[in-house]
Amino acid sequence: MKMSELGEFGLQERLAQIIPTGPGVVVGIGDDAAVFRADGLGLATTDSLVEGSHFSRAWASAEELGWKALAVNLSDIAAMGGVPRYALVSLALPGDTEVEWVLELYEGLVEAAQLYQVAIVGGDLHRAPEGSINVTVLGTAQGAYLLRSAARPGDLVGVTGYLGSSAGGLRMLRQGLSLDAEASAYLRQAHLRPRPRIGEGQALLRLGVKAAIDISDGLVADLGHLCRLSQVRARITTSYLPLHPLLKRAFPGQAIALALTGGEDYELLFTAPHEAMLRARKNLPVTVIGEVREGEGVEVVDERGQPFPLEREGWEHFAPGNRQPQP
Amino acid sequence: MKMSELGEFGLQERLAQIIPTGPGVVVGIGDDAAVFRADGLGLATTDSLVEGSHFSRAWASAEELGWKALAVNLSDIAAMGGVPRYALVSLALPGDTEVEWVLELYEGLVEAAQLYQVAIVGGDLHRAPEGSINVTVLGTAQGAYLLRSAARPGDLVGVTGYLGSSAGGLRMLRQGLSLDAEASAYLRQAHLRPRPRIGEGQALLRLGVKAAIDISDGLVADLGHLCRLSQVRARITTSYLPLHPLLKRAFPGQAIALALTGGEDYELLFTAPHEAMLRARKNLPVTVIGEVREGEGVEVVDERGQPFPLEREGWEHFAPGNRQPQP
Repeated sequence: MKMSELGEFGLQERLAQIIPTGPGVVVGIGDDAAVFRADGLGLATTDSLVEGSHFSRAWASAEELGWKALAVNLSDIAAMGGVPRYALVSLALPGDTEVEWVLELYEGLVEAAQLYQVAIVGGDLHRAPEGSINVTVLGTAQGAYLLRSAARPGDLVGVTGYLGSSAGGLRMLRQGLSLDAEASAYLRQAHLRPRPRIGEGQALLRLGVKAAIDISDGLVADLGHLCRLSQVRARITTSYLPLHPLLKRAFPGQAIALALTGGEDYELLFTAPHEAMLRARKNLPVTVIGEVREGEGVEVVDERGQPFPLEREGWEHFAPGNRQPQP
Repeated sequence: MKMSELGEFGLQERLAQIIPTGPGVVVGIGDDAAVFRADGLGLATTDSLVEGSHFSRAWASAEELGWKALAVNLSDIAAMGGVPRYALVSLALPGDTEVEWVLELYEGLVEAAQLYQVAIVGGDLHRAPEGSINVTVLGTAQGAYLLRSAARPGDLVGVTGYLGSSAGGLRMLRQGLSLDAEASAYLRQAHLRPRPRIGEGQALLRLGVKAAIDISDGLVADLGHLCRLSQVRARITTSYLPLHPLLKRAFPGQAIALALTGGEDYELLFTAPHEAMLRARKNLPVTVIGEVREGEGVEVVDERGQPFPLEREGWEHFAPGNRQPQP
């Protein structure tokens, strides 16, 4: 059955059966606005996935898109060191979208929501020529929070997990590359089912870290945002970058470039004084990749201290050529 | 200059200059998430305007769209009797959109935000083949709130302001009708610059009203939502409908149908026992248009009690033919 046959209100009734409520929710989906308990410092972030720009139904399942649409927002709450609580989902879909596809998308949303203990409390649904999913996540800051503007000269630059794997996955999917099963599964998951570092963000805050951003536009671009807002300069060394063995095996000549500018890693990039960084490395999957200095901008050097050539800084949403080709 | 030349980050710098902060905002636009003070019961709602479905640049200015995108969300907070506090704005735009157009859109957003004391605290910006504006508004409930599910048999049905004027305005704009200046200005404003009934929603709550919804899909459709969630039946009489003289003059034979099913009035539709309705009529621009009974569904009758024929109930987002023709 297509959306144009079921209609908005028909879908809402089906969704009511699959969307669970959660703690703190007083009035969930169905009224003019959601009502929920809110105390102290609230957090709010919003981000969209747009068909053609961010995904293609040719290589992403509805369930993966639902997961990712929520995960990328949870990652922003993680980058504040916060606790995600509630989500609102705004969908725009062509009329000929299969209802089954929409329900699967919600299954992915609900799966991520349950894993990360977020209640979906509202949303809207509209007809549009191309699909898009906008999610807003509300959270709570536990007293303090991580800021993009809190990096200081003398800090070290750290990052959680591995870099470049998501961009490797995107390249594999777009180019239809045949990789071995292990690499293929890993890279696909890295691109389509990113795991927001919520626990790690909260732990970094407890360990004394002050400055963080999540990596969505790409390491160099996001480190650039952090430097600009902190009025500092950062220098990172390519040989320190955490590259997954499966990424290096799949893209031996390009893994470093993918890690520097590929984007959509949804890892946490942070800076901290030496002692706090030591604590972070001891407790969390963290790699030190560089240091913060006085000045401005981002310097990328290789293991000999020579400038590493960059083709581009990272994702710029309106740059020419950034629109993914339609399959 | 076009968006593809300025880029997302260039725009953000321009926007930082025109978006004011507000009370309660701890960290506004520019970090991974906004940080704000939140206490007690929070409210959240989200709604989008999609190019082609909800607006056309041929007859709506960017500034009017910005105003409306925020106003339709504020109307949802009004329908809960709440106080709007913060807004997040998610924009999807074609790369060839003029930067000037985007700045004008934000001027409309900021104008509405300042009038209704809302702080724009975040958002995102993406490239897409057609424009769309998604807004999320967060608010506070002052102890109690109005619900769609609280109508009871014996209640009267009331509505604020006038009905059908927005749909009249849409018809005028879409068909390019030449009306006299007074009617033209009134109908255009009704469609493109709706005024959310925030003060009225709060006042209704104080006066003892329990059940409300705002009219976006159309009187009959929205009354239907309210009846379904309250498990009651409503009967409204067409001769009671509040029709503006300029609407009746512009569309003499169609004003009642526009009021019943046109939609986008953003007036408050509510039900209340006789005494509370008396207080509401005394203090607010409210018209009684019917009554609530046991049963289900919405009955529309004329002044002799005869069924009034409806061509459709109202706006259904995925119904065939609901997509507005491109000019």
